[in-house]
Amino acid sequence: METVVKSPTKTVVIGPDRPFVIIGERINPTGRKKLAAEMREGDFSRVRKDAIAQVEAGAHILDVNAGLGVANPHEVEPQVLAEAIRVVQEVVDVPISIDSSVVPALKAGLEVAHGKPIVNSVTGEEERLESVLPLVAEHGAAVIAVCNDESGISYDPRVRFEVAKKIVARAESYGIPRQDVIIDPLAMPAGAVTGSGAHLFQIVRWVRDELGCNTTCGASNISFGLPNRPALNAHFVSMAIAAGMTCAITNPLEEAIMTAIRAADVLMGHDENCMNWIMMQRQLAKAAEQKGEEGTATGRRRGRRERRTG
Amino acid sequence: METVVKSPTKTVVIGPDRPFVIIGERINPTGRKKLAAEMREGDFSRVRKDAIAQVEAGAHILDVNAGLGVANPHEVEPQVLAEAIRVVQEVVDVPISIDSSVVPALKAGLEVAHGKPIVNSVTGEEERLESVLPLVAEHGAAVIAVCNDESGISYDPRVRFEVAKKIVARAESYGIPRQDVIIDPLAMPAGAVTGSGAHLFQIVRWVRDELGCNTTCGASNISFGLPNRPALNAHFVSMAIAAGMTCAITNPLEEAIMTAIRAADVLMGHDENCMNWIMMQRQLAKAAEQKGEEGTATGRRRGRRERRTG
Repeated sequence: METVVKSPTKTVVIGPDRPFVIIGERINPTGRKKLAAEMREGDFSRVRKDAIAQVEAGAHILDVNAGLGVANPHEVEPQVLAEAIRVVQEVVDVPISIDSSVVPALKAGLEVAHGKPIVNSVTGEEERLESVLPLVAEHGAAVIAVCNDESGISYDPRVRFEVAKKIVARAESYGIPRQDVIIDPLAMPAGAVTGSGAHLFQIVRWVRDELGCNTTCGASNISFGLPNRPALNAHFVSMAIAAGMTCAITNPLEEAIMTAIRAADVLMGHDENCMNWIMMQRQLAKAAEQKGEEGTATGRRRGRRERRTG
Repeated sequence: METVVKSPTKTVVIGPDRPFVIIGERINPTGRKKLAAEMREGDFSRVRKDAIAQVEAGAHILDVNAGLGVANPHEVEPQVLAEAIRVVQEVVDVPISIDSSVVPALKAGLEVAHGKPIVNSVTGEEERLESVLPLVAEHGAAVIAVCNDESGISYDPRVRFEVAKKIVARAESYGIPRQDVIIDPLAMPAGAVTGSGAHLFQIVRWVRDELGCNTTCGASNISFGLPNRPALNAHFVSMAIAAGMTCAITNPLEEAIMTAIRAADVLMGHDENCMNWIMMQRQLAKAAEQKGEEGTATGRRRGRRERRTG
């Protein structure tokens, strides 16, 4: 089953027989104080830069979030999110994932997003289903379905899969075809929930085999509280791809993650003639070379300064 | 289903609910000219060192191979393999995997190996089945079953799975219980055979679901001919573990592979309290620190020499 999303001129197809689709996560002020402050003041220069850098690094879709941590998000966020999406669409031509927990912000985003975007996200909570799904249906968008509901996030993968089934059924009742519902099984921290990786792989297989839908996740939660998070995140992503996951909201500027995705594409047979892998290795070699030259120059400068002051 | 192998005092259990089992591959003169020359001359000092280093790095079982590339392997290899196994058993106390394509060498190895070893390997070829399986049965060993036969290695995963089924059935006819047959689905180069990773993952799932046997592989073949082989090999191993692979013949001294295995154990829920992961990160940090110090010292020395001669 394939999910098709679009920018004005580009079509991105998410599906089990396709290269893995990367949804760039960087345009998100959560935990980025500078970006949050700039966006509050109407400065979108960093948003522009992040959009260009992520697409250059390989992002197929860009997630745009404007959660500024303000007291009145319902008043502030719709306008800021819409503006951020406008700015992103000015500088890059990829489909947009409209990321908010504020329904009026999703609405404002849907009004300015060109093509066919993704709404990120709806949960299994009644109030969310009834407010978000009509918007998704009205705009003919795709939607990410997150596997929690009023009772929170279950540790039991079967319960999370039941939530996925409920959301798909409800989406269909609103006229949203199931190929436009992308399931996020939710990655729980492996350090706190033993076997949470295996649980997610299991849900991904169930979704693929029983619902036929595409699956996604925000990978970095899996490594919360553990050392060497980049390596855990990267192996989590490639293992999830082996289980059938077809896209992820992640940072294409992180080398370990991109290596995992490109390697998984080769190993799944989704990288024709291994060209993406070979290109990536060439780019990494070139970048390392340039860095080495710069490093030497900086080292020399620093060495001279130390001798002067020391 | 669990495969139990033993040294005189240590029991190693290979199974789907256990930490991944590492079979150290280093004691193998193929492609190691120095080691081959030494072993031919009866010098086993490097074998000893490799045995200790691999067990210290985390190997649970040691594969011992004495393929010296000589013209008369049937005369030479039995004695050299037996001696190598004796030497390894003197310095470490882990189960042995007796690795040869020469049947008299397997026989000689089985006679000196203590505990319950693995015979590596039998194929689906009639002549192999009829010469190796009686030896395995007689010594109560476990055996690695490689999925090729007289017709070679099939590109079709269904054909390779049929070979696996044939070997298991034949082993049972010799009184070898199926839990003592570990299937190697064969990793084909992904650069030459598109989707060979996915094929292997599929065979691993079939073997687990339909035969219940454990699975293994030699991982590095997957990346043959492609750049950045360590990263491809590492993601291949973690993806295979996600599909259900339970052990591998690999190099525990390679950081990328060990990171993949330790990460996969965390993500599958097979690393209690993530202790192996946390310990590994501490050791890596310590090693990097020491290397940094040595690096600086060497750099200083080299710098001085260059100034003298330059």
